[in-house]
Amino acid sequence: MSEGSAQRNFSMLADFYEFTMMGGYLESGHRDTVAVFDLFFRRIPDGGGFALFAGLEQVVQYLENLSFTQEDLEYFRSRGFSQTFLDYLRDFHFCCDVWSVPEGTPVFPNEPVITIRGPLLQAQLVETMTLLSVNFQSLIATKANRVVRASQGRTVVEFGSRRAQGVDAAVLGARAAYIAGCAGTANTMADSTLGIPAAGTMAHSWVQVFDTEYDAFRAYAQAYPDQCTLLVDTYNTLRSGIPNAIRVFNEVVLPRGYRPVAVRIDSGDLAYLSKRARAMLDKAGFRDVKIMASNSLDEYIIRDLLVQNAAIDIFGVGENLITSKSEPVFGGVYKLVASADKSGVLQPRIKISETVAKITVPGFKRPYRLYSRENGKALADYIALWEEPPVDDSRDMTIFDPHAIWKRKTVYGYVAKELQVQVFDKGRRCCDLPSVEDIRAACAAQVDTLWEESLRFEYPHRYYVDLSQTLWDTQQRLLRDMSLPQVDAAADIYKEEF
Amino acid sequence: MSEGSAQRNFSMLADFYEFTMMGGYLESGHRDTVAVFDLFFRRIPDGGGFALFAGLEQVVQYLENLSFTQEDLEYFRSRGFSQTFLDYLRDFHFCCDVWSVPEGTPVFPNEPVITIRGPLLQAQLVETMTLLSVNFQSLIATKANRVVRASQGRTVVEFGSRRAQGVDAAVLGARAAYIAGCAGTANTMADSTLGIPAAGTMAHSWVQVFDTEYDAFRAYAQAYPDQCTLLVDTYNTLRSGIPNAIRVFNEVVLPRGYRPVAVRIDSGDLAYLSKRARAMLDKAGFRDVKIMASNSLDEYIIRDLLVQNAAIDIFGVGENLITSKSEPVFGGVYKLVASADKSGVLQPRIKISETVAKITVPGFKRPYRLYSRENGKALADYIALWEEPPVDDSRDMTIFDPHAIWKRKTVYGYVAKELQVQVFDKGRRCCDLPSVEDIRAACAAQVDTLWEESLRFEYPHRYYVDLSQTLWDTQQRLLRDMSLPQVDAAADIYKEEF
Repeated sequence: MSEGSAQRNFSMLADFYEFTMMGGYLESGHRDTVAVFDLFFRRIPDGGGFALFAGLEQVVQYLENLSFTQEDLEYFRSRGFSQTFLDYLRDFHFCCDVWSVPEGTPVFPNEPVITIRGPLLQAQLVETMTLLSVNFQSLIATKANRVVRASQGRTVVEFGSRRAQGVDAAVLGARAAYIAGCAGTANTMADSTLGIPAAGTMAHSWVQVFDTEYDAFRAYAQAYPDQCTLLVDTYNTLRSGIPNAIRVFNEVVLPRGYRPVAVRIDSGDLAYLSKRARAMLDKAGFRDVKIMASNSLDEYIIRDLLVQNAAIDIFGVGENLITSKSEPVFGGVYKLVASADKSGVLQPRIKISETVAKITVPGFKRPYRLYSRENGKALADYIALWEEPPVDDSRDMTIFDPHAIWKRKTVYGYVAKELQVQVFDKGRRCCDLPSVEDIRAACAAQVDTLWEESLRFEYPHRYYVDLSQTLWDTQQRLLRDMSLPQVDAAADIYKEEF
Repeated sequence: MSEGSAQRNFSMLADFYEFTMMGGYLESGHRDTVAVFDLFFRRIPDGGGFALFAGLEQVVQYLENLSFTQEDLEYFRSRGFSQTFLDYLRDFHFCCDVWSVPEGTPVFPNEPVITIRGPLLQAQLVETMTLLSVNFQSLIATKANRVVRASQGRTVVEFGSRRAQGVDAAVLGARAAYIAGCAGTANTMADSTLGIPAAGTMAHSWVQVFDTEYDAFRAYAQAYPDQCTLLVDTYNTLRSGIPNAIRVFNEVVLPRGYRPVAVRIDSGDLAYLSKRARAMLDKAGFRDVKIMASNSLDEYIIRDLLVQNAAIDIFGVGENLITSKSEPVFGGVYKLVASADKSGVLQPRIKISETVAKITVPGFKRPYRLYSRENGKALADYIALWEEPPVDDSRDMTIFDPHAIWKRKTVYGYVAKELQVQVFDKGRRCCDLPSVEDIRAACAAQVDTLWEESLRFEYPHRYYVDLSQTLWDTQQRLLRDMSLPQVDAAADIYKEEF
């Protein structure tokens, strides 16, 4: 089976507790209990102003292939699970409703990015793989977009496979980087399986194998005269690499009717070397030959290089991008927000915590994004309960910060757009998956709806994610009601401890 | 096909330049040129005293499955590769010799961990996937062993799948963590496909779904009376969680003839809560019930918790381990160290660099580890050229630091053991792959040969990795010879630039 295929079965990619809980729910009368879970995150990596949502296509493929083989059942039997549980898994048929923000959309803390409603057992089971897929690709898309923004319209190529945290990280990381605006990748499998454009020319080993750098360049140009990019830093970039490259461009590439493509610098001071190399290439008549640079680049170094007028046209970015090295975790979580009571009515649920920021927003919800009618910019996100009437965007709306309710703001002249689309209807996919090209284009368009103030690296504007009054009231009511009964019930036993 | 299978084909997981170089070598008369590449690394993550080598089994599986499908060939045709190249790939048959340090071995900077000798085209092709596999699993094994050491004999469980950088990262990260001493994982697929013991009980959502915490605990205990671990921090650990757990242990678990297993605390101050919880459990007659703690743990927090006498028996470690968050990149590199000259004789090759630390150790080499006969401790590693006579460990040996040659040391009373074993002989695997259990045991034994001074987190002892005199002389000669000719040849053209 070819890698990257939509056919891989990840049903066993779940924390073991998803299965013990499923077994327990079957035993305790919750086989048909309906619940709603939200996937959301609490903090934007690198202190950024927004995150980019990615990884949905892989979640969809996972959900479509969700089923358990005889081998899987034998495993669970060996682990002591009941026959009831094994029968349930054998007949497993995914039947949840799923809503999601489209891939490539800028997203913000504490808003539901994916919402799954269905049998508690099923909605619980899919937690681990859904989180894993969204966490990783959103992490890389968010990071890659920072690098792309720093490059100010220049080309960024993802180069990090050898330092990626596994094959999937390399291939799907290349995908996420592409969605976020990278021009391509060095990873061949990402191209052959997912259509992410791959490119590459030579390593230092190529230059070392030949007797001289000149011989190495000449051999490469003879093999690929139409796409000649030469790595010029093996010995000495300015004293041998660039002169040898120019010689070979003149002796081999031009006589065959082609223009050389680029030179690549992979070490040394990239600002200084690129400016000197640019001057040498220009003087030799190769103004159109691009300079590619690599070597531990990230968004900050790229920004600094450009401040210093580095003459770099293409940035190759490796480990710092493919692992999001400065912050390698996207902290998406997946929380129960509603479950049916004994009479089958969906009740909002809250998870309380000593850390205020970890208290969840309860209920089955509907998030909106409000755009200015005047300039198309995103003004705020607004989350209401599902059962509330749709936002009437012909009327002004006063919104408030749920963490500081005295911060109120009246929004006018806006269009309200639902943030999520339905992806599965009772377990059946109900929307087409966009191509990665379309996601990439949509991503660029959506990032363009953000104010510049949100795009800054340092202390970006904090975008508003506000709750409807009804939702906020629900949260406050649950906070009042939920914590005390537990303690009171237990208090009889351990009075002396309190 | 089940995930984690040895049958997956990763042949296309290679940087695109591996293929352009292969095509170029075919065109320039290097089809049969033999070369030697070393995989080594330059820096130990987190400033540690050693790294743990892991990921070999996946490299072996990759090399054994190396072949190109018709689909792959079509891809390369569409990318403009020559028919000669397509024919080469179609008939591809891996025929290199491969030597490697065994998995689970402590390794140090600048020594060859894997060495591959064979046709240049082949040894070049396998660069990306070999690095990816070794870099990731060595990263996680190295990190996991730090966490295990910090835990001072307590149990550490890997918990990070949802934050892992992809499915492979989750599954193979669990494997690497297990090799390094973790007791198991939360990842079910790592258990069902690789036999890494998986465990898990309940999430907060379990507790939320029931009307009360007590109901939730009782239902769980009824479903799993023989393996009852309860998550006690959903509402209030000391005022409700522990009292409710004790009540359920008494009401449900004991009457059925079992002892409860553990309670888990996932938030709050783990030192304080665990000590209070311990006292409450002890008082209630549950001295044998273990306390498991999780929540953003790493080696430093665990060390601090134990300094404060936290009463924790089991640590669940998530994102900080599975991504090696503090340093998420293991910087293994893969460098040409020898290639045949025109008459077919293997010549050592060096890669020079302005950064002294990046200059490679040339030649086809044989690394040794010297152990004390007295106490079995590792004294130093020693790297000689392949053609040098074997180390005679009946004689004292004076070794020196290649970065400060005046630092000399005479080693006596030692046993010299070759560090690498041959894994492939002309493309055919020539050794059995040890089980993950055996690797884990060997790892513990090997870490035990290190001096305590190398195990420290802060400013550990720098272990000696020294070169033979012949090897050092070779390196110095190549350094003198290699850089100038390139510059002189190019200088004619660009005199005015110098």
